[in-house]
Amino acid sequence: MIVHLASFVWKDGTSPEQVAGVTAALYEMAREVPQLRFYLCGENLRLRPAGADFGVLALVDDPAGLDAYLDGEAHQRVQREWLSTMVASRQAAQLSSDALSVTGDWLAGH
Amino acid sequence: MIVHLASFVWKDGTSPEQVAGVTAALYEMAREVPQLRFYLCGENLRLRPAGADFGVLALVDDPAGLDAYLDGEAHQRVQREWLSTMVASRQAAQLSSDALSVTGDWLAGH
Repeated sequence: MIVHLASFVWKDGTSPEQVAGVTAALYEMAREVPQLRFYLCGENLRLRPAGADFGVLALVDDPAGLDAYLDGEAHQRVQREWLSTMVASRQAAQLSSDALSVTGDWLAGH
Repeated sequence: MIVHLASFVWKDGTSPEQVAGVTAALYEMAREVPQLRFYLCGENLRLRPAGADFGVLALVDDPAGLDAYLDGEAHQRVQREWLSTMVASRQAAQLSSDALSVTGDWLAGH
C-alpha cells in the first residue's frame, strides 16, 4: 500500500471557518475517490510543540491510485477552492507499507 | 489511535550514506519503544512532484505513548546523532483514527 502523508502550514489570517470548510471539502472529496483505501485529515492535535497546522494521511493501492486521487477533479476542486488560498507551506512524502489494514469506517463522522 | 506524521527536508550536502544511516537508526529506535504500535519511515518515494525528502508515520495508543516515543532516550539519541545535523525543515502533525489496524510485521526487513 502507498502511504501518502502531507502537512500544511496555513497563511496568516486563515480563519477557523476556512479550516472547518476545507476539512469538510476534503472529506467530501474522499467520498468521491474510489482509489482511496483510507483517508484522514484534520487540524494538528498539537500534542507536541511546534508542528504544522493540518495533516493528511491517505492510503492507496499503488502509484496509479495516488495520481487518480491527487490529479482527479474532486481533489483539484478542493485545491482551487480552498487550499490554493490557505496554504503557506506544504510538505508531503510517499512511503510504502503492507503492515497496515483498514478495519474501520474512516468516513464515519465526516 | 494517535497518528503522528512527519516529513523532513534535508540540509544541502546530506549524503545518501547519512540517509541510510538515519533510516537504520530510526528503525533501531522503533524496536526499543514499546509504545509504538506501528512505525514506518524512509525516503520519499517521490511518486509526486516536489515533496519532502523523508517521511515518518507512527501510530501510538495515546498522547502519553507519543511522548514516551518522542521524548524517550532512544529517539533523543537519533535526534542528537543524526537528525540534528541533517534536517533543514521538519513539519509534523498528529491526528486521531480508530479505522486503522496493524496487521503486518512493520519491522520486517528493517
